[in-house]
Amino acid sequence: MTPSQHTPDERRPIGALLAPDILALLEEAPAQIAAETEEMHPADLADVAEALPFEQVPVFLAVLPKERAADVLEYLDEELRAEVLEAMTAQQAAALVTEMNPDERADVLEDLDAERAEEIVEEMPAEARRETEELRRFDPDSAGGLMTTEYVSVAANTSVEEALRRVRVIARSEKREAMHAVYTTDDTGKLAGVLSLRELLAAPEGATLADVAWTEPITVSPNADREEVARVISNYDLVVVPVVSESGHLMGVITVDDVIDAIQEEQTEDVQKLGGVQALDEPYMQIGLGTMMRKRAGWLSVLLFGEMLTTQVMQHFEHDLTAVTALAIFIPLVVSSGGNSGSQATSLITRAMALREIALSDWWRVARRELPAGIVLGTILGLIGMLRIAAWQAMGWYDYSSPTHSWEQVALTVGCSLVGIVAFGSLTGSMLPFLLRRAGFDPASASAPLVATLVDVTGLSIYFGVAWLILLR
Amino acid sequence: MTPSQHTPDERRPIGALLAPDILALLEEAPAQIAAETEEMHPADLADVAEALPFEQVPVFLAVLPKERAADVLEYLDEELRAEVLEAMTAQQAAALVTEMNPDERADVLEDLDAERAEEIVEEMPAEARRETEELRRFDPDSAGGLMTTEYVSVAANTSVEEALRRVRVIARSEKREAMHAVYTTDDTGKLAGVLSLRELLAAPEGATLADVAWTEPITVSPNADREEVARVISNYDLVVVPVVSESGHLMGVITVDDVIDAIQEEQTEDVQKLGGVQALDEPYMQIGLGTMMRKRAGWLSVLLFGEMLTTQVMQHFEHDLTAVTALAIFIPLVVSSGGNSGSQATSLITRAMALREIALSDWWRVARRELPAGIVLGTILGLIGMLRIAAWQAMGWYDYSSPTHSWEQVALTVGCSLVGIVAFGSLTGSMLPFLLRRAGFDPASASAPLVATLVDVTGLSIYFGVAWLILLR
Repeated sequence: MTPSQHTPDERRPIGALLAPDILALLEEAPAQIAAETEEMHPADLADVAEALPFEQVPVFLAVLPKERAADVLEYLDEELRAEVLEAMTAQQAAALVTEMNPDERADVLEDLDAERAEEIVEEMPAEARRETEELRRFDPDSAGGLMTTEYVSVAANTSVEEALRRVRVIARSEKREAMHAVYTTDDTGKLAGVLSLRELLAAPEGATLADVAWTEPITVSPNADREEVARVISNYDLVVVPVVSESGHLMGVITVDDVIDAIQEEQTEDVQKLGGVQALDEPYMQIGLGTMMRKRAGWLSVLLFGEMLTTQVMQHFEHDLTAVTALAIFIPLVVSSGGNSGSQATSLITRAMALREIALSDWWRVARRELPAGIVLGTILGLIGMLRIAAWQAMGWYDYSSPTHSWEQVALTVGCSLVGIVAFGSLTGSMLPFLLRRAGFDPASASAPLVATLVDVTGLSIYFGVAWLILLR
Repeated sequence: MTPSQHTPDERRPIGALLAPDILALLEEAPAQIAAETEEMHPADLADVAEALPFEQVPVFLAVLPKERAADVLEYLDEELRAEVLEAMTAQQAAALVTEMNPDERADVLEDLDAERAEEIVEEMPAEARRETEELRRFDPDSAGGLMTTEYVSVAANTSVEEALRRVRVIARSEKREAMHAVYTTDDTGKLAGVLSLRELLAAPEGATLADVAWTEPITVSPNADREEVARVISNYDLVVVPVVSESGHLMGVITVDDVIDAIQEEQTEDVQKLGGVQALDEPYMQIGLGTMMRKRAGWLSVLLFGEMLTTQVMQHFEHDLTAVTALAIFIPLVVSSGGNSGSQATSLITRAMALREIALSDWWRVARRELPAGIVLGTILGLIGMLRIAAWQAMGWYDYSSPTHSWEQVALTVGCSLVGIVAFGSLTGSMLPFLLRRAGFDPASASAPLVATLVDVTGLSIYFGVAWLILLR
């Protein structure tokens, strides 16, 4: 079937396009499917499977060679994959899952209910079962959970030609996902060095691996979280990173494709948190309405309780509100500007923290930037606000003066409050991620709505405070 | 120097740690530096360079072998790199830059001012100059701008053994960044197939590449933007993707490390936009205060003008505000809840759009999810709000009744407005990204503050509308 050239903004329609052909073949000539789809990427075949009626998916997988079917399973939508594996017998499922890479195997089983996963593992051959059980001990979001145990390692004193021969034997006999690099070990079995496949090919004949391997490989510990693994891989432009135990032994390797998925997921979580939602952990269109409600209602309710403090402040100044109506009129304007500047600051700082551009100890340097920044921004907004009031007054569109105060006093109150509130908003928005992180929370929980709520309450107090100084005394 | 094991949350202190040693060596025995740092990753050496006094950086680079210095330059902070290249003679700079990969070369020159870049290009050897000038014609954020022209391609009818021999010759003679795959071409020079280095090693002796290569390679067009390239690489778990012209000829390849950087940058932009900031394009701690002001003041002013509409609404209902003070008291509470639910919706939808989970045509499906979601969320908040009022009233902490209305009417007004405003907020927050995209803007510009401002204005109208029905008639 046809090669695919990807152009900007095109969605992948391959599944929907080819599904009818595959359905027809399943009916008429299922034996041809393997040959017809031989050159297609398994990701595209997974797309096709997703477009088939559910009961045809296991049939489709069954007509593919087993290793190929396992590849397709790897790219299948997680929910569909779990359902397909539930629909098969444990033996059938085990036969497919065994063909997957060990790290994917562990991930797939993670998505099934524990009992079913156990049944499938028990049907696996002993070697695969051992590998799988070992990987399932790790947190799926840690380096141990991301790594695969398929890698090539040879003693450091092996000759280049012998290593190359071994690599060719392994490449022919097994599927080694991570064969971008060859690792060398010392006499005690500890990781000694690394060289890429290209470097192995480039090595002069007659040399040993010890002569040509890099002796200070970049490694991660099995407990490193996926963000840290992503940072190491991206800092050092690696395709694969070895996971090394405290004793210095190679436990597995993590390939860059798993890390890209991890980066995307982390970023999705961060964006959702910034918007004031608990991380959904599922695509928006697939998540159940009930689950989504729970992930949103919690924060909304917390924020509502926070906002109730504004009611307290308003009640406290009720008398002044009745006395000076002009004061009430500008409340939404003044207060929301603080939330906006706070939301800017918090998005800048949480992102810089996620990228490790800013450490916890930088809080003072950040505060020294944000306070003057906030004052300047507040002054700009304050001037605009005062001009707005002066314009309305001059045009005769509205009269902000009253027997007890002049319109200039109102304008000055709005202007000065904006300076104070915007400066306070920038400071709050920038310091909240530090406070959260210091307290052991995820700094990304410093959401725009949370900052806005904090600044609403304090902003109102600033506003009435300034009004008291200028207008109400 | 010592190998580095990366543990969670550790910042890379290598530069600061080793800089004093390197400084001492530069003084006493500069010739030893190359050997001492031989096994270090160039990213770590770049860290060291960043920790040195500026005038020592060119000296440090000069004592390293030229190819090694070029590697360090590749990982150096962009600003520092530009300054270092400005400080050298054009000849010295050209000698270093020539040693870099062609794609990095183009990126480095992009950061210099045009005249200086031209001087350096002119000092390059003809072949490097041609490669560099070709790549510089592309938008740096497009596939053409990301690709490197170093790749290995051979005719499809080459034998496996011959191809392997050629690969070894090339690997020994040149630095081929992208040597993860070998591409095959047909008689007319068009891209015919691809196989990974592992597959080449695994291929049976006596076969030709045409027998073993994949004949439907996944490719991108040179005009694809970096987001699209990232999506292709991550969908298909690729390490490298070929860039192919409309005529089917291989133009270059893009490696996964460049794509990870692109994903991170895109993501930073999206988070900053979501927070209501123009994309900074520079690390937070490095950007000048003036530039940052400009990137923030623009949106803040636009939002302020938006919020001025709230003033109009408030002025319109001034009479009612004076008559029923209880009404004014709940304004911040009620209005901000709409902004919060809108901010949730907009963060969910913009992210799902960035991940291509949602297309423009899905707007109706999204609206049908968000409206009921908003009504349920609004009802939850409305009930909490009414309970709050009832509690204060029952405890005697505040009296919301007046000669003209009962406290129950106030509670009902707050409760019903919350349902309407939260539902409206969810709908606005979810539809704004679609509208922006439809109008040709980046949907990520649907920032939390923008949604909050839109919802503030309409939310006030809803509030006064509900109040009019329940309280004011």
